[in-house]
Amino acid sequence: MKIEITAKDISTRARSGKVKTSHGEFETPAFMPVGTQATVKTLSNDELKGCGVQILLSNAYHLYLRPGADIIRNAGGLHRFMNWDRPILTDSGGFQVFSLAVLRKVTDEGVEFQSHIDGSKHFLTPRSMLEFQTALGSDIMMVLDECVHYPCEHGMAKRAVKRTLEWARLSKTAFADTGPGPNREQHLFGIVQGASYEDLRKECAEELVGMDFDGYALGGLAVGEPREITSEITDFTVSLLPEDKPRYLMGVGEPRDILEAVSHGIDMFDCVVPTRNGRNGTAFTSEGRFSVRTAVNSSDLSPIEEGCGCYACRNHTRSYIRHLFNTDEILGLKLVSLHNIYFYQRLMRGIRQAIKEGKFTEYKNERMEKWTHRLQDR
Amino acid sequence: MKIEITAKDISTRARSGKVKTSHGEFETPAFMPVGTQATVKTLSNDELKGCGVQILLSNAYHLYLRPGADIIRNAGGLHRFMNWDRPILTDSGGFQVFSLAVLRKVTDEGVEFQSHIDGSKHFLTPRSMLEFQTALGSDIMMVLDECVHYPCEHGMAKRAVKRTLEWARLSKTAFADTGPGPNREQHLFGIVQGASYEDLRKECAEELVGMDFDGYALGGLAVGEPREITSEITDFTVSLLPEDKPRYLMGVGEPRDILEAVSHGIDMFDCVVPTRNGRNGTAFTSEGRFSVRTAVNSSDLSPIEEGCGCYACRNHTRSYIRHLFNTDEILGLKLVSLHNIYFYQRLMRGIRQAIKEGKFTEYKNERMEKWTHRLQDR
Repeated sequence: MKIEITAKDISTRARSGKVKTSHGEFETPAFMPVGTQATVKTLSNDELKGCGVQILLSNAYHLYLRPGADIIRNAGGLHRFMNWDRPILTDSGGFQVFSLAVLRKVTDEGVEFQSHIDGSKHFLTPRSMLEFQTALGSDIMMVLDECVHYPCEHGMAKRAVKRTLEWARLSKTAFADTGPGPNREQHLFGIVQGASYEDLRKECAEELVGMDFDGYALGGLAVGEPREITSEITDFTVSLLPEDKPRYLMGVGEPRDILEAVSHGIDMFDCVVPTRNGRNGTAFTSEGRFSVRTAVNSSDLSPIEEGCGCYACRNHTRSYIRHLFNTDEILGLKLVSLHNIYFYQRLMRGIRQAIKEGKFTEYKNERMEKWTHRLQDR
Repeated sequence: MKIEITAKDISTRARSGKVKTSHGEFETPAFMPVGTQATVKTLSNDELKGCGVQILLSNAYHLYLRPGADIIRNAGGLHRFMNWDRPILTDSGGFQVFSLAVLRKVTDEGVEFQSHIDGSKHFLTPRSMLEFQTALGSDIMMVLDECVHYPCEHGMAKRAVKRTLEWARLSKTAFADTGPGPNREQHLFGIVQGASYEDLRKECAEELVGMDFDGYALGGLAVGEPREITSEITDFTVSLLPEDKPRYLMGVGEPRDILEAVSHGIDMFDCVVPTRNGRNGTAFTSEGRFSVRTAVNSSDLSPIEEGCGCYACRNHTRSYIRHLFNTDEILGLKLVSLHNIYFYQRLMRGIRQAIKEGKFTEYKNERMEKWTHRLQDR
């Protein structure tokens, strides 16, 4: 797997390009909506495509627990199970094991945990999660890594990096051992850990690059640290990664975080922010975000955002959507989620366009100013 | 308002036709999905149209409480509030007042009750509900009536009929007094009450017909009485109604109840059965109904119904939909609701087609046999 860079910004590291998979290509910088349980909450595949979504993320941890490998294998892989014919990236489950599961026990071999759903015991290894993702047939698989919390002492972060590197090697070996999955060609990304320590990020990045992965993710960021640290570590880490491979900043983020990370050379993003906010009635717009639930929208006959081409904005008023939230109607959750996903895809198109036209910094500053301003008003 | 009868069955009273409204015409026999709170739960307008829905029902009681007259008037009526440009029928709120509200007090003037949502006190009169429906701009409005429970003694049913008739007169007068609403032409239906007593049904029907309504509804049926009584009273009451006006059996029903009532000459139906069942995972098919939630569907790669043209069946397997229910994903509720609404519309098309082709009894018997058979298996 390579990323074909088609445009580069002059004053930042921002770049735009394309990544090919056997389920078609996606343009970068790309935002992947999160289909945690093989569905992007409230939205159908047609609606996602209508929003311009080119690649989805799904969570191996959740799929491993429900419906499990057998049912997805029986369907012929995750694409066919959920009937999504565009690229899918699956994470390895690492992050969820470290954030959701209970009674974790991490050893050099893997991680034992109890399901957050029914308390059942499981043992995940780099190999088992690689094999599970092979069964899923994801276009891009992630290695199992050890995630640490923020803040994290240097010693603990160093041990997690050591284990992450060892697991990356084991994943690479397992990947070489498995035949191709049900969906033809698959790719494997390494994950750079190292918390907020440059020496650890450097060690981790260099070792992983030596193993030659199809792409590189930055893990353990946007986990509670100040935005300046996210930005600094992203910038530092990207400088250690090869130009010709995709770079993926895991779990990021809000629109302004994406703009910032793009300027450091990140190509791929995923985050539950647009859908989770959609379900609680918070809508993103070019002018900032607002809650459709507030009484001020009761009689407002304007759409969520003037000029937005999404289904919600073309068809419904704030007044109606506010009523739907007020009466706990599911259509409300769907309409704002859909708008937010559309907004994110529009943002990414805007970013790509700006990079192509050599206007990325202008585009970024203009938006940042509005959003920072609005955030102070909240 | 007239119903243009285009075909009549020879061996039953079944008939097929068209009813014109200022938001377009709908074909009969018609099934109206229920948009309780200005939304058919889980479905968008585009999805409803994709299912072939020609007319919706919405509940005045719910809309009266939330969002209230001002907000809907501000939007220019219910059609514009919810952006539905096809016909809408609204009930008067009577049924909900008698089934949902607390601390009801019925007088000759109207009914006092406390909201089931916040306990606030309200007083509804035949005139206020007529005026409210005028503000909604519904194509077909219903008079406020007094509903009784089943079983109901003759004396009590008689008093309710008397009040229903008095309220019908007051509604008619109020209708004559109000100017046209925001959505041009509106029509008013009377409601025949009388529980399971033929003498009361006769009295009520004859009086209402004398008042000359745009159509006639049968109320107080399918409220717990045996199916034979529903059938007998429907048959008896329809025989008292004019040929050239639409007849509407309120709150009915399951597919076999619809087939039965069509044979007695009913033109219009509404029921929450397809959507309520959809949300609990019960799917209707030509072969009967089943729950997609059961484990037997875990690995079933067939659609809900082979050959069904709905979005759910064209795109998703039972295995996937079962997983969505198993993981509490909203998309599951939507997919089965959508299938059920599509199934109901297909049933109505089938009924209309069979009447046109002079094969209604055949069509009815064939389906009844399957459904009765399957019901015994449950």
